[in-house]
Amino acid sequence: MPPTKAPSVPDLEYSQRREAVAAGLEAARLDALCVFYPARVAWLTGFHHIPTERPITALLDRDGFCTLVVPAVEKEHAESVPGVDRVDVYFEYPGERHPMETVRDALAQIQARRVAADHDGYIEYWGYRGPRLTDVLGSRPADGEMLIESLRRVKSKAEIECLQVSAEWSGRAHREMQAAIRPGRTEMECYEEPAARTLQRMIAEMPGWRPRRFAGSGLTCMFVGGKKTAMPHGFVRGQGLQPGDVLVSGAGADIDGYSSELERSMIIGEPTAEQRSAFAAMVALQDRAFQVMKPGVPMGQVELEVIAVAGELGHTDHLRHHVGHSVGLEVHEAPFLDRGETDPLEPGMVFTVEPGIYLPEVGGFRHSDTVVITEDGCRLLTDYPRDLESLTIPLP
Amino acid sequence: MPPTKAPSVPDLEYSQRREAVAAGLEAARLDALCVFYPARVAWLTGFHHIPTERPITALLDRDGFCTLVVPAVEKEHAESVPGVDRVDVYFEYPGERHPMETVRDALAQIQARRVAADHDGYIEYWGYRGPRLTDVLGSRPADGEMLIESLRRVKSKAEIECLQVSAEWSGRAHREMQAAIRPGRTEMECYEEPAARTLQRMIAEMPGWRPRRFAGSGLTCMFVGGKKTAMPHGFVRGQGLQPGDVLVSGAGADIDGYSSELERSMIIGEPTAEQRSAFAAMVALQDRAFQVMKPGVPMGQVELEVIAVAGELGHTDHLRHHVGHSVGLEVHEAPFLDRGETDPLEPGMVFTVEPGIYLPEVGGFRHSDTVVITEDGCRLLTDYPRDLESLTIPLP
Repeated sequence: MPPTKAPSVPDLEYSQRREAVAAGLEAARLDALCVFYPARVAWLTGFHHIPTERPITALLDRDGFCTLVVPAVEKEHAESVPGVDRVDVYFEYPGERHPMETVRDALAQIQARRVAADHDGYIEYWGYRGPRLTDVLGSRPADGEMLIESLRRVKSKAEIECLQVSAEWSGRAHREMQAAIRPGRTEMECYEEPAARTLQRMIAEMPGWRPRRFAGSGLTCMFVGGKKTAMPHGFVRGQGLQPGDVLVSGAGADIDGYSSELERSMIIGEPTAEQRSAFAAMVALQDRAFQVMKPGVPMGQVELEVIAVAGELGHTDHLRHHVGHSVGLEVHEAPFLDRGETDPLEPGMVFTVEPGIYLPEVGGFRHSDTVVITEDGCRLLTDYPRDLESLTIPLP
Repeated sequence: MPPTKAPSVPDLEYSQRREAVAAGLEAARLDALCVFYPARVAWLTGFHHIPTERPITALLDRDGFCTLVVPAVEKEHAESVPGVDRVDVYFEYPGERHPMETVRDALAQIQARRVAADHDGYIEYWGYRGPRLTDVLGSRPADGEMLIESLRRVKSKAEIECLQVSAEWSGRAHREMQAAIRPGRTEMECYEEPAARTLQRMIAEMPGWRPRRFAGSGLTCMFVGGKKTAMPHGFVRGQGLQPGDVLVSGAGADIDGYSSELERSMIIGEPTAEQRSAFAAMVALQDRAFQVMKPGVPMGQVELEVIAVAGELGHTDHLRHHVGHSVGLEVHEAPFLDRGETDPLEPGMVFTVEPGIYLPEVGGFRHSDTVVITEDGCRLLTDYPRDLESLTIPLP
């Protein structure tokens, strides 16, 4: 393909997000919001970072004034972000003075009295230990998590475009990987080289593209094989693949920090009757979800409909998780296609649809597609064959 | 090398850890400890998992009885862990009933009244939202974080062996990578293939080895290049390398969940006088740290000594972070080689030693070695050249 710029979220959209959150503060008669959760800092400012023990905090006041509190290692990076009005720097964690003191100073600087926070202090990563914001302020902040989360759950046109391009690269990587799967090879021997090759194409075809979300490469494409796939989060086992093995894959690409999800069940060689049956049932569950998903339908209803199909097919006991989760700046985001969610689907929400069937003696069966809710239904962003014939790896 | 089994932490050691924590509970007149932080769950039980929005909690009572509360996706995995006495399963997050209710039931089951916790509820990952443990119990739990952390900071013989083997694989991967660096290539083109090749050797030479800590491959080996290295956590930029570029690398390998850290500054082609000077200063800072580190020396003293050398060499303003952090089950762990730490070094502690010098117009200069405190000093686990000549990439 000819080189083309990767899509991204424009600066204007970050400004609009901050305005919308500031309006929420105004409506709730609050002065400022402290944002500690890394993906929310990225959503609000475009400042992406790898969470460490060094706390990073975004402060937004009701006029939209935005402060970032960062360690010295992030100073230049923070100062390069458009739309951040002020950067307050502490040298290091733990340091002579706890970084939460700098957060307190920054709140004093913007004269914030009625403070909300998405979390009561910095979220513990790695070796971090610190006081609650409650302890630092002397009173408990208001719960401001939903001031951002209520906006984050519906994706903009630019976000959906990033997810669409991510889905396309995931599909390309997955096709390369599927073509490299052979009995006798280990999982890693099958997927490392095609993943690296696709990554090089991303670099070549999208000049200036770089991963934002990960320290690593920005493209994931891998699979696990064998009976361990019956554990939904199975680890790669590192032994050679065998005829009859069930595989479950996963692929995603980072486009301006957004990643779609593509997963496929595959079978090496002629499937057994049991494998055929479980595979067909899993596809039927996913089909039902696609049929049900449209604006106005409660999210929980999607799972209940899928459970009903599983019951009809005799697979009630083989479910291990709900139908899917939102995707965007994070691999999993709220809300979920889960019986516990009562809110309706809205146009612009983006979910994985990935009901699975897990048989301990046979393996795990799960496709995951990334789906956007449209005005009158839903549309798949991922485009990859779902049928057993296309996903059977021929024996040499 | 001939195939050999990768080292690992034996089941007995996990039992001993639980006994030691139970003794701590007894001494503090507490009935049980709730452990929410994923690396602490792994340290206590050997149950490694990828943190998601689905809370996982380990409960330990003063008799050493160990309960794991897990979602259905982790049921079989949790049940396969030796030394876990009871597994309580909730189906899914968010679900009809919040998973923290299952944690409350599990605490009732072991008749725990005086409860400590390492965190006041599950730590927020991805789309998780939930009550504090305080809200669930009706009173605030005791702060039990140090019941584990005070033990985790000193590594056992088995842990040090894992870190040693990790350091050896990191070195092998880094040597392969260094040999593949050429001007004109992008960073990823230089490191993806050597990393994949080393990974395949890990599989071949350590039968049964598999990564525990990551969803991914278990071996990281990469670098960033150019002036962006002046931002210590710079991202890969994806453009071709140029003569004169400064590179900063990072390599680590997962051995039973433990990973060492190896980082090197490299220069493409003949170094300039400025580059030579900054490189030499950085090596002098690291040398001073190695000289100072021995049992009894306050951790903060290591940073102060390094700062003194930086002052002598005119680089006070070019420091952006402290000297290092502990390593073990996590990439960064407490405690730190930081002025804020007053505790003394103890034999068996393992730190990265990685003072850095950052010049915006030149680049970043940082080596990171992994070092264990011995009875009378310290010993490097990483074994890789540190001198400029060895780390200059020749022009073709």
